[in-house]
Amino acid sequence: MTDFAAIAPLLEGQAIELPSWAFGNSGTRFKVFGTPGTPRSVEEKIADAAQVHQYTGLAPSVALHIPWDLVDDYAKLREYAAEKGVSLGTVNSNTFQDDDYKFGALTHVDEKIRQKAIDHHFECIDVMDATGSQDLKIWLADGSNYPGQADIRGRQDRLADSLAKIYDRIGDDQRLVLEYKFFEPAFYHTDVPDWGTSYAQVSALGDKAMVCLDTGHHAPGTNIEFIVMQLLRLGKLGSFDFNSRFYADDDLIVGSADPFQLFRIIFEVVRGGGYGPANPDGTSPVAFMLDQCHNVEDKIPGQMRSVLNVQEMTARALLVDRDALSAAQAAGDVLGAHQVFMDAFYTDVRADLAAWREERGLPADPMKAYAASGYQAEIEAARVGGTQMSWT
Amino acid sequence: MTDFAAIAPLLEGQAIELPSWAFGNSGTRFKVFGTPGTPRSVEEKIADAAQVHQYTGLAPSVALHIPWDLVDDYAKLREYAAEKGVSLGTVNSNTFQDDDYKFGALTHVDEKIRQKAIDHHFECIDVMDATGSQDLKIWLADGSNYPGQADIRGRQDRLADSLAKIYDRIGDDQRLVLEYKFFEPAFYHTDVPDWGTSYAQVSALGDKAMVCLDTGHHAPGTNIEFIVMQLLRLGKLGSFDFNSRFYADDDLIVGSADPFQLFRIIFEVVRGGGYGPANPDGTSPVAFMLDQCHNVEDKIPGQMRSVLNVQEMTARALLVDRDALSAAQAAGDVLGAHQVFMDAFYTDVRADLAAWREERGLPADPMKAYAASGYQAEIEAARVGGTQMSWT
Amino acid sequence: MTDFAAIAPLLEGQAIELPSWAFGNSGTRFKVFGTPGTPRSVEEKIADAAQVHQYTGLAPSVALHIPWDLVDDYAKLREYAAEKGVSLGTVNSNTFQDDDYKFGALTHVDEKIRQKAIDHHFECIDVMDATGSQDLKIWLADGSNYPGQADIRGRQDRLADSLAKIYDRIGDDQRLVLEYKFFEPAFYHTDVPDWGTSYAQVSALGDKAMVCLDTGHHAPGTNIEFIVMQLLRLGKLGSFDFNSRFYADDDLIVGSADPFQLFRIIFEVVRGGGYGPANPDGTSPVAFMLDQCHNVEDKIPGQMRSVLNVQEMTARALLVDRDALSAAQAAGDVLGAHQVFMDAFYTDVRADLAAWREERGLPADPMKAYAASGYQAEIEAARVGGTQMSWT
Amino acid sequence: MTDFAAIAPLLEGQAIELPSWAFGNSGTRFKVFGTPGTPRSVEEKIADAAQVHQYTGLAPSVALHIPWDLVDDYAKLREYAAEKGVSLGTVNSNTFQDDDYKFGALTHVDEKIRQKAIDHHFECIDVMDATGSQDLKIWLADGSNYPGQADIRGRQDRLADSLAKIYDRIGDDQRLVLEYKFFEPAFYHTDVPDWGTSYAQVSALGDKAMVCLDTGHHAPGTNIEFIVMQLLRLGKLGSFDFNSRFYADDDLIVGSADPFQLFRIIFEVVRGGGYGPANPDGTSPVAFMLDQCHNVEDKIPGQMRSVLNVQEMTARALLVDRDALSAAQAAGDVLGAHQVFMDAFYTDVRADLAAWREERGLPADPMKAYAASGYQAEIEAARVGGTQMSWT
Repeated sequence: MTDFAAIAPLLEGQAIELPSWAFGNSGTRFKVFGTPGTPRSVEEKIADAAQVHQYTGLAPSVALHIPWDLVDDYAKLREYAAEKGVSLGTVNSNTFQDDDYKFGALTHVDEKIRQKAIDHHFECIDVMDATGSQDLKIWLADGSNYPGQADIRGRQDRLADSLAKIYDRIGDDQRLVLEYKFFEPAFYHTDVPDWGTSYAQVSALGDKAMVCLDTGHHAPGTNIEFIVMQLLRLGKLGSFDFNSRFYADDDLIVGSADPFQLFRIIFEVVRGGGYGPANPDGTSPVAFMLDQCHNVEDKIPGQMRSVLNVQEMTARALLVDRDALSAAQAAGDVLGAHQVFMDAFYTDVRADLAAWREERGLPADPMKAYAASGYQAEIEAARVGGTQMSWT
Repeated sequence: MTDFAAIAPLLEGQAIELPSWAFGNSGTRFKVFGTPGTPRSVEEKIADAAQVHQYTGLAPSVALHIPWDLVDDYAKLREYAAEKGVSLGTVNSNTFQDDDYKFGALTHVDEKIRQKAIDHHFECIDVMDATGSQDLKIWLADGSNYPGQADIRGRQDRLADSLAKIYDRIGDDQRLVLEYKFFEPAFYHTDVPDWGTSYAQVSALGDKAMVCLDTGHHAPGTNIEFIVMQLLRLGKLGSFDFNSRFYADDDLIVGSADPFQLFRIIFEVVRGGGYGPANPDGTSPVAFMLDQCHNVEDKIPGQMRSVLNVQEMTARALLVDRDALSAAQAAGDVLGAHQVFMDAFYTDVRADLAAWREERGLPADPMKAYAASGYQAEIEAARVGGTQMSWT
Repeated sequence: MTDFAAIAPLLEGQAIELPSWAFGNSGTRFKVFGTPGTPRSVEEKIADAAQVHQYTGLAPSVALHIPWDLVDDYAKLREYAAEKGVSLGTVNSNTFQDDDYKFGALTHVDEKIRQKAIDHHFECIDVMDATGSQDLKIWLADGSNYPGQADIRGRQDRLADSLAKIYDRIGDDQRLVLEYKFFEPAFYHTDVPDWGTSYAQVSALGDKAMVCLDTGHHAPGTNIEFIVMQLLRLGKLGSFDFNSRFYADDDLIVGSADPFQLFRIIFEVVRGGGYGPANPDGTSPVAFMLDQCHNVEDKIPGQMRSVLNVQEMTARALLVDRDALSAAQAAGDVLGAHQVFMDAFYTDVRADLAAWREERGLPADPMKAYAASGYQAEIEAARVGGTQMSWT
Repeated sequence: MTDFAAIAPLLEGQAIELPSWAFGNSGTRFKVFGTPGTPRSVEEKIADAAQVHQYTGLAPSVALHIPWDLVDDYAKLREYAAEKGVSLGTVNSNTFQDDDYKFGALTHVDEKIRQKAIDHHFECIDVMDATGSQDLKIWLADGSNYPGQADIRGRQDRLADSLAKIYDRIGDDQRLVLEYKFFEPAFYHTDVPDWGTSYAQVSALGDKAMVCLDTGHHAPGTNIEFIVMQLLRLGKLGSFDFNSRFYADDDLIVGSADPFQLFRIIFEVVRGGGYGPANPDGTSPVAFMLDQCHNVEDKIPGQMRSVLNVQEMTARALLVDRDALSAAQAAGDVLGAHQVFMDAFYTDVRADLAAWREERGLPADPMKAYAASGYQAEIEAARVGGTQMSWT
């Protein structure tokens, strides 16, 4: 079995982008619980995100959501983030909270509303130009609730047209990343419900269009690592939205529901060449992001736990003895190959990672160090008044 | 095959209770769309519900949700409803929108919070006494999001204790009805996730405690008509919350996603003696209710469509030639028995029902009659200002 | 609403191919029940299939499965079929019942076994040349049962290579049709698990390679009509394997589990131009086939019921008032559009279809006519001795 | 965190029963692959099972399946097993492979067939008397494939009657254990589909009737540990059939698909008092059994891997710091409680267990020791000719 020392260098530079919205309040359709200290501004969300990076060294950038994170001066925001030790990352568009989009956005049958949704993406690209963001991530809430309500074919054609117009504006060093989702908020059909649809749509656009895989957006039982493998093989895996689910799009902490699935996913990323620095030919690596909702748990430690889970599972995936695995696979040794795989999963990497962190000037136990820092008490005292940020 | 004339009398007196909250705004965690004319008060919700009954003759009562439908004077509300032609029905408790209930209500580890939740149910029983409602319906949002977060065994024991205290307050002519739900808003465990749990809990209480079956609260693939059969057999099916789903608890219009499933469910209700007036021995019939969210469609016609769907499917279920079915079943004639069953499902009962309605002074086409009535324009004009009612 | 007379001409020429194996015994891993009269030869299977066509006029061709339907002289078999009134259709390959294929066929890591699987497909193409079949249908059982057992990426690359070699042999008027399946017989990963994979693989081959959609091969909750729409839009829907499911790949009679889903699927076929005679530009229409297992019901009437279900649902789908639907959709009239759709579904087309059949010299009630024919008693008496055909 | 030394004594005496049928060939409806050395007799199956116990010390008994394991002299079989170092355990009835049971066994509408099925269980009890087995396990394949095919209510009543007759024959020290299963081999309804049905049926029988929970027999997404908790709370969890699944009833090696789920299940067994020796009041502990199919992997090492997985996960479950967990739960510390739970799951217990085994005269690595033993080569050479045992 590969040992930790051999894989330690590969852990250098691992970066997991945090979503700004994870630091605001979130909840279900039944209730959103507020908590003391929740940010009232984009800046406060960035300050909180910076805490995660400070204690883990794993989260150097923060994704923005427009219009939730609209500010007047992005250069200033960029500077503010830099002072805090993080950068601004992916820009997420939002076409699901305007009354006009009740029956669709990029797929809307009304050309005026559809153009409005396209224009919103142009604005997002403007933001990207100002922030230096690489990726425009599009998640569409478009869909319908009742059979017959919508012409699903016409919508798909309009989607293709809308995406083409947006893609035309994408800069040479920028990417359009199209997320798919099985269902919700639409309950009969969703316009980008599966990887096949996202793949077909982005393939029609060009090299700078990629698929975003959110680990919570699949039908029950779906083999997600297979999709990871396939998209890497097809050269179209742009990014991950990591989270966990037991049922639907539960948006729980990544690795908390099925840690072994996370292991298998990251193993296929490694196997398929999607992990590590940019390839020599300039192609972009796969971007790791979180997309989670901390409905009942603390937000900053919740994000910390998440990036640590990804790091721990990456270490385990790297520990797989690939030569032994290949040999057992070639020999048709089912139990042998499975055991090589499980040996890495069952290896306890936590002590090694604590030492690894200390060597790099990070706390051995980031969760404890953060808890001891007093930051939470500080923001609870300071952030009084104002409106806590949330999804709306 | 049984003909319509033979079953027409059995359609008399069918009653489907409407949820007051269906007339307020609802939506997903992403967005709640408001609509012109939405009620700003309990009275306006009741007025809208009365429209459904006026045009269909199927919906003589309205369920209340406490605290959403809290008023100072229930006698007055009862009178108001009577003037509109409807009565007040089931009282639904709500323990999911108070900050205290973040980690549970009837199951909470903190005795003070648990007592608060019990007390809330006592208040609901007071409301029932004032309104003359028969059923106290309990749907619990209690659960947890992460493995380890909660002691699921301790919670079950506390639930039993809480329910026993509430049951003690239930009057001789009242019932406690316990709803189960697979998941949401909790995403790891739910304290009453399946019919087995609800059945075990209400069985421990006594004869006046029953199970509520919400058609959208099951795991994918669950054979719901089997549960209907079983609960009727065990004498514990208290009521239905009707709605439709494609994925999770989508709360779509009953009969819109899988009409054949609705047919099979109602057939088992009929087969098991759960349809029709109270039995001579005084046992209660099964209460039919709707529990739906009209996120994107019009609310009043949405409720109208729903009760009509239930009526149409009841007619089809009653049309099954039970003798021919039994004969084919006894003979092991798989295709023959299936065809007897399908013959009833495929029968178009709409024209017969239109005539049936006209004979009773109801419009042949309730949807058209309502649309022509001008009521919607009227409420849009009248209901300006104020706060539209919704789930919060 | 469109009336039956208007759509009657569109029902002309509808053809649903029958699988030869549906007339042999089938079952589950627990038990295969034999029945009197089951065919002992390919010829007897064809004779039985011809009965279905004789009484319904809907099933003019029979699909073969190699090696189950291996004969020495295909010209003779073709002639035999013609005498019985049917033709030989799609050729299905089989790479799941040879010990060599325990760990894969077209994906096998051992080049010798992989070549054997490729060679088998060459033989199938030889059969097609002899029978005049248009389609080579490939369903792969390839997959693995345990994480780590197989290198899923390597297998995908080998699959692409194997398919390319087979595709090279396909004649100008022939097609390669690649079926996908969610799971079974492999229980961890399947090499062609979803439409996206099948689409990506056939797109790499060329214009004569298409996707086969088996209605039972999806994850729970999958919106199948969306996939139908998408594949038609992408020009890659080659054929259907029709059947029904409640749980997994149950292979029940098409239309028996969720008739409304079948309606929605056929509506999208019509909407997307996949129904009717070959297009003027010579492109092939979508082939309709059955792929079912009559484990407990009679086989010949089971197939009859199936093709009648498809015909009845096609009639309903054609009855949708497309203009009214489009108008309601454009107006954002959710309930109105849904009702237009449901009006067609709820229309009872059975009497019209009985008349339609009689006009064409077919029995009004094919099920009854077949039952009265005495054919079943005849084959039970005649087919004594020999080995009943089944999957093995 | 609890350390291994503290929990080591609790691992003493852990016993996991092996199914005799796991050593015969098994497969899917598509293909059963044979393997050299497969047993041709009950004795050879027991000899193979004894190997598992010899190397792991975890599997002291073997479950029988009647009629697969019918012999003339059970006293002699018992003696043979004892010589090999194992005992005979649970007796499993089989009512799914006789033509008479095509439409049901204990639920059959034909009283003669139903009595035949009851009589079969009487014979099984006779076998139990001869073998000294404690448990009669009943898994029913009864169900139907098409809506309308069967009267599901009548079947449930007949099931109750049949079970009562069987229960009457059960001895004072014997138990009747009723297994439930979501679906398969029936594809529309199953007569004992869920824990609620099994619980209701066994509750009506008496104290010696219990529920058997097979970990692969649930709907997608079901929280199995919740059911474990509930059945223990209700005093009705009789036994486990352990295995793993990704999709349906895949019958894979326990712990291979979702190790974290196995951890959660065993934790609830421990939490609910279901683990360990019989209680002082004489109530029986929960029986652990395997029920798996080694379709593609080696059988003896497959069983070995399985019992080791159960042991390793039991050790992890015992390592949970229950005091720290309770404290965090009581404090509403979601992340803290979750981390206490995960800390135990992520602990690598393999080296400690190897040492534990060596202290007890067992090989540190049972898999390696067995592989080195030459037993497989021996049986491959010796077991030539005869008919390999399988499910049929």
